[in-house]
Amino acid sequence: MSAEAAIQTFDRQQEALLFDLLAFLRFETISAQSEHATDMRACAAWICGQLDAADIEARMVDTDGHPLVVADSGPVPGNAAAPTLLFYGHYDVQPVGDLALWHSPPFEPTIRDGAIFARGSADDKGQLMTHLAAMRCWRQTGSPLPVRVKFIIEGEEEIGSRNLPLYLRNHAAELACDYLVISDTSKLDAQTPALAYATRGLVYKEIILTGPNRDLHSGQYGGAVANPANVLAAILNSLRDHQGRVTIPGFYDDVVPLTPEERQRLGTHGLSDADLVAKTGCPSPSGETGYTTAERCTARPTLDVNGLCAGYTGEGAATVIPTTATAKLSMRLVGNQNPDAISLAFDEAVRQVCPPTVKLTIRNHSHCAAYLAPTDSPGMRAAAQALADSFGRPPVLTREGGTLPILPLFKEVLGADSLMLGFSVPDCNLHSPNEFFHVADFVAGTRCILRFIERLGHM
Amino acid sequence: MSAEAAIQTFDRQQEALLFDLLAFLRFETISAQSEHATDMRACAAWICGQLDAADIEARMVDTDGHPLVVADSGPVPGNAAAPTLLFYGHYDVQPVGDLALWHSPPFEPTIRDGAIFARGSADDKGQLMTHLAAMRCWRQTGSPLPVRVKFIIEGEEEIGSRNLPLYLRNHAAELACDYLVISDTSKLDAQTPALAYATRGLVYKEIILTGPNRDLHSGQYGGAVANPANVLAAILNSLRDHQGRVTIPGFYDDVVPLTPEERQRLGTHGLSDADLVAKTGCPSPSGETGYTTAERCTARPTLDVNGLCAGYTGEGAATVIPTTATAKLSMRLVGNQNPDAISLAFDEAVRQVCPPTVKLTIRNHSHCAAYLAPTDSPGMRAAAQALADSFGRPPVLTREGGTLPILPLFKEVLGADSLMLGFSVPDCNLHSPNEFFHVADFVAGTRCILRFIERLGHM
Repeated sequence: MSAEAAIQTFDRQQEALLFDLLAFLRFETISAQSEHATDMRACAAWICGQLDAADIEARMVDTDGHPLVVADSGPVPGNAAAPTLLFYGHYDVQPVGDLALWHSPPFEPTIRDGAIFARGSADDKGQLMTHLAAMRCWRQTGSPLPVRVKFIIEGEEEIGSRNLPLYLRNHAAELACDYLVISDTSKLDAQTPALAYATRGLVYKEIILTGPNRDLHSGQYGGAVANPANVLAAILNSLRDHQGRVTIPGFYDDVVPLTPEERQRLGTHGLSDADLVAKTGCPSPSGETGYTTAERCTARPTLDVNGLCAGYTGEGAATVIPTTATAKLSMRLVGNQNPDAISLAFDEAVRQVCPPTVKLTIRNHSHCAAYLAPTDSPGMRAAAQALADSFGRPPVLTREGGTLPILPLFKEVLGADSLMLGFSVPDCNLHSPNEFFHVADFVAGTRCILRFIERLGHM
Repeated sequence: MSAEAAIQTFDRQQEALLFDLLAFLRFETISAQSEHATDMRACAAWICGQLDAADIEARMVDTDGHPLVVADSGPVPGNAAAPTLLFYGHYDVQPVGDLALWHSPPFEPTIRDGAIFARGSADDKGQLMTHLAAMRCWRQTGSPLPVRVKFIIEGEEEIGSRNLPLYLRNHAAELACDYLVISDTSKLDAQTPALAYATRGLVYKEIILTGPNRDLHSGQYGGAVANPANVLAAILNSLRDHQGRVTIPGFYDDVVPLTPEERQRLGTHGLSDADLVAKTGCPSPSGETGYTTAERCTARPTLDVNGLCAGYTGEGAATVIPTTATAKLSMRLVGNQNPDAISLAFDEAVRQVCPPTVKLTIRNHSHCAAYLAPTDSPGMRAAAQALADSFGRPPVLTREGGTLPILPLFKEVLGADSLMLGFSVPDCNLHSPNEFFHVADFVAGTRCILRFIERLGHM
């Protein structure tokens, strides 16, 4: 038995499975809006039905928020050594925003020019459906799955995966796996598949400096009291040097250096200086000395001010010494920086610089590790081959500049690396009106999943 | 003939003159509100009448805004060497704010506990009335004034003296004088008169840095573009050193050093560290190394950030690289710093530090020189003696930390120093509800003006 038999089954049933996907997309599963609680449960039950149809025992798990769907195919008969894959996905979607901007209603999926337009079509129902369709097709061949398959599908990804970590930690043994499989990212471009192996972490802080008990007249007191806004500038400036390097002691200690292969790859496929300028309107690139634009925005840690607020910010001028000055700022981390250690080192560095003439408060916001996986694991090799076979060209190995908190979470709790098999296109209107997912990518994605599980079963 | 004859006249007519002051206070001369244009003209005409009653030829001068009152007593008969005094005052007042906070209506002057409560009672009608009353009383003695007296009284002080500079420059010869006399400040405290001889100047700037053409996602581009907020922190930090000194080249070149006498006086009468902490709630004083609190907030130049704005400033966190970052900041100047030179040096210093990776715009707001007068001039000596004789103790020579744009203006155009004979108390609710002026200070102030002109006439 090979994946090709299941692919033939899939090809015969494409239309029916596509209709199932449209049904999936009709559930109004906006996790942020409590009036959709019933839709959420109905959708989770529908997913359980899809998995049951694939002979993968599924159940709905209640949480303090929206339910999880958890499923397990059980061990592979006659092959105790077969690896275990944990498929992750989410059935919740973003709010729809301004309905007037949609060319067709967000929860009435419509196929135009070979693309399915609906909220959640790319993020993540359409991609998750490739997993479900693949399982059902393999089941119909009558052969057992070549690998043990588990599923964990949440309904809270768009609202910060609030209840996922607790469930994971309490059920680590039940969810044990060799790899996590996620289809919630995009290809490099319409023609080229991508296989991301790294995301950046995030430590987000807020510095609040308080000086006088009210805004003071700068004529009356200027020069005689510490100005929180001046002090804030000094603190922020102290955190980076003239070469764009972060000066917090130990900040770079655990950074895994880029390999020559990675640098070459980023040089070939990564963001060019010209593209950066075209896409951002910045006068020129700027960043850490010794690294390229592509390296800086994916493979190097950063410290960026995200917000500043102090004193008078209206029209014209007001001669006040502000009572408070606030900065929101965040550090993007890379493997293997430890967010706990970075957070403490940041606080200590700020305290060292802050004079006793103002009161310092540091607030913690997001806190998430980077994710960095080996690129030569059996899972990555199988995924790369399946992508190449299904999309007609080999995938580009990529680093993501953004943060995916679930990746380091699964790695920490289950010890498993993640394989990001993303099937949507980069400009698929994610979180925006007229989100879409190409039918051809649904087809190639399902085939890719079938080839991937077969290949991994034989490794 | 001595001032004492005029003082006796004044003492006999106190009640009538006080009634005139109440009439003066009933004009609703809020210069900021155009519906009061008629009140403004009526009040200016009323002042002309007061001066005419003192045989000082007065006229109303139209401007592009509210009218000026200009008057001249003419040369002193038989004493061509008698000095000339130009009395300055303003008849416009601040808006009244929340009427519910006033214990009596702002334009229905009411005497309670020996104080006149009304908008403008201290700032400046009550104080200006001491000048008018003194002139009328001297006139009634039948003797010629001991000095030549000129008046310039404006109706736009509370809205930035918009039309005064042009009139001054066009009529410098007509307004020529030895000293300017202003009663628009306060005593040191209820018991102690003050004689200010210095105010600080002001150069107010706005720095606007623009980077990307929109707020960027810091995961996508963080590290690869210049962040305007980080750059702003670096620029602001570069403008002062760790000793609280401004680092702009040449900034201190023209600063007149404090004399040992001044330092001793500031040490005795100036703001103490304990008072600063009590009045501001700051953890401790802070400022330029080598100077005391009293020196820092009156006699030393400063650079204070007045406002900061960039990126996300709402609740929680947003991972943006802001498209712009803005700082409003101002430098308080002291004698003899040149605001033009300081402004240029500031711009140059900022341009030197600002990298080409962001677009820099510098906007100019206020621009005013400091004022610093000799403390041993005949005018100062006469004023000090008149204050001592009228208030029962010698005045303290003070420096003001704030800015009075008309002082350097009169000095520049007329070459005349200003004598600040202030009669209100420091806590007279200036610009606030329930502004007041003590009747006793109206009396002592009028006597002081009479003694001052006599003394100066004999010098």
